[in-house]
Amino acid sequence: MAKPDFAPAPSLDPELREKIQQSIDSKTKPVGSLGRLENLALQIALAQNSTSPKVESAQVLVFAGDHGAAHEGISAYPVEVTAQMVGNFLQGGAAISVFSRLFGLDFRVIDAGVAQTLQAHPKLCDLKIAQGTKNYIEEPAMSQAQARLAMARGAELAMQAKGEDLLVLGEMGIGNSSSAALLTHCITGAPLEGCVGRGTGLDDDGLGRKHKRLSLALERGGRVQDPVAALCEYGGFELAMMVGTMIQAAQARQLVLIDGFIVTASALIACELCPSIRPYLIFSHRSQETGHRHALDHLQASPLLDLELRLGEGSGAALAYPLVQAAAAFLNQMASFESAGVSRDR
Amino acid sequence: MAKPDFAPAPSLDPELREKIQQSIDSKTKPVGSLGRLENLALQIALAQNSTSPKVESAQVLVFAGDHGAAHEGISAYPVEVTAQMVGNFLQGGAAISVFSRLFGLDFRVIDAGVAQTLQAHPKLCDLKIAQGTKNYIEEPAMSQAQARLAMARGAELAMQAKGEDLLVLGEMGIGNSSSAALLTHCITGAPLEGCVGRGTGLDDDGLGRKHKRLSLALERGGRVQDPVAALCEYGGFELAMMVGTMIQAAQARQLVLIDGFIVTASALIACELCPSIRPYLIFSHRSQETGHRHALDHLQASPLLDLELRLGEGSGAALAYPLVQAAAAFLNQMASFESAGVSRDR
Repeated sequence: MAKPDFAPAPSLDPELREKIQQSIDSKTKPVGSLGRLENLALQIALAQNSTSPKVESAQVLVFAGDHGAAHEGISAYPVEVTAQMVGNFLQGGAAISVFSRLFGLDFRVIDAGVAQTLQAHPKLCDLKIAQGTKNYIEEPAMSQAQARLAMARGAELAMQAKGEDLLVLGEMGIGNSSSAALLTHCITGAPLEGCVGRGTGLDDDGLGRKHKRLSLALERGGRVQDPVAALCEYGGFELAMMVGTMIQAAQARQLVLIDGFIVTASALIACELCPSIRPYLIFSHRSQETGHRHALDHLQASPLLDLELRLGEGSGAALAYPLVQAAAAFLNQMASFESAGVSRDR
Repeated sequence: MAKPDFAPAPSLDPELREKIQQSIDSKTKPVGSLGRLENLALQIALAQNSTSPKVESAQVLVFAGDHGAAHEGISAYPVEVTAQMVGNFLQGGAAISVFSRLFGLDFRVIDAGVAQTLQAHPKLCDLKIAQGTKNYIEEPAMSQAQARLAMARGAELAMQAKGEDLLVLGEMGIGNSSSAALLTHCITGAPLEGCVGRGTGLDDDGLGRKHKRLSLALERGGRVQDPVAALCEYGGFELAMMVGTMIQAAQARQLVLIDGFIVTASALIACELCPSIRPYLIFSHRSQETGHRHALDHLQASPLLDLELRLGEGSGAALAYPLVQAAAAFLNQMASFESAGVSRDR
């Protein structure tokens, strides 16, 4: 398996930027009155290098993986729930299944490293690296070879989906908000305490236990700042695979819609490895998970939605998809003052 | 024309509330993890008095009207733009036209009181009260009879649209953020200065002029706290008509999606007249217009979106529509822990 290619993503065209901005400002509305949708339209157009960007098709990729540390009582849910929820995704009963259907999004689940052997299903893609990571409290979560394999497989997924206008990334993995907390600490330098949250709903005792366990992991492995090394120490296979998908998508000028805390932790790694991908990432929502703020600040990202979500699965990203469509639509379809015969401001 | 009927809207069923909350909590997700979407689903179900609420069809109603005071230099745009933008709505070139198309929303423009005679169009509904209001700096904007006629016509519109699951309310009227500022001041008691914003984009000089003109209006008419009297002093025909639509829709258990500052000012009046309609109103977005905060606080409303919009037309409400659909969809379609065979938290 080839090493993932970290060639830079294409740079954005400054002349096109000016042209798009002029087009946005010529639309029949007060300048700037569509607020953040205007920046989003500009981002989409620049990413696609087009004056008439297209957001008509998208693929939801939900990456599932298990975590050796999940047996340490760091989650409100038992480890088996990862595989059970994959079943629920595929049967159409999970939030992300419902939202994908509602918004007409193609939907696939990726087995990046679920601890159980999953039944084949047309919407399930078996890219399993191993049956869960090692327990990072005792040893590194994965080997360098595994991390690179996961990234390479993630990149291949993006290549297969290159006909889609947009990729919507989500995840499932009991314990993976702990992995995200450790990675966020490593990359941003924010204190561990600020990166550790309640995940799927720990009570105060559970939160204290989670923080203690993750402190132990850090005592063992330290604050690793190299992105691949950090993945190896504390990552998950689903997190590593998303890194490869993001980088490859951006290299092909494909937009990636980022879900909550865990996908953002992958984005931290991806942007360390390949900073030029940043303009291809759209941050969908601000999660209730404490550490998300640090990850977003580090990436200078202001998500589109703030609905106090903390579910994962790509649910927040799917909910933001109509806004991305709306941004492209106003740029493509709104009349200009001239064409509509509307007077400009005085 | 009959007086609008201000009978209370149906009260919500507390037993149903409990049942819906249990249903939400049984879904395959950590309790509360869909955040504000969970409250929204509850609101929708209670409004429709149903365990399986429906948000499949919606009608966008954009109310257009002109303001006598608009000649006083309180807007960045000339008065003619109201009629020109109505033409643009109908030709499909405005933001609300684009978003309605994108989200499959039925779309109508209501001439509540545009200063020009508009050409007939299948999507234009002529309910004109007069060719614009009077200049409230010199005299009341409308008579009691006009205000009541506007509300009654608005109520009739809601009756005609009663097959729709939801009404999406927007407006167009050069100068109507001034009207909204005065009404917000009257109803909430917030200082005028905090209610006056840049509207479609006034510069500092323009903002100062707007504030001075509105102060003159208040010197003449005073802070009128009776809602219909406030409408008569400072309202617009589009604002008055929306009041009737909101009240009638709520009385028929129909949800109303509220746009930005101006529609919220109408909601202030409507909720004063008929407080029981409040649970039927969904607030879509937080506008950049300063006064919106006061109006929202008074109504104890937390809008779904905060995208720094300040366009009006119903554009923010249309953008929130997919979230309303998503809330109903998760309640109707998500599996329960039991049905999906997923383990609960420990």
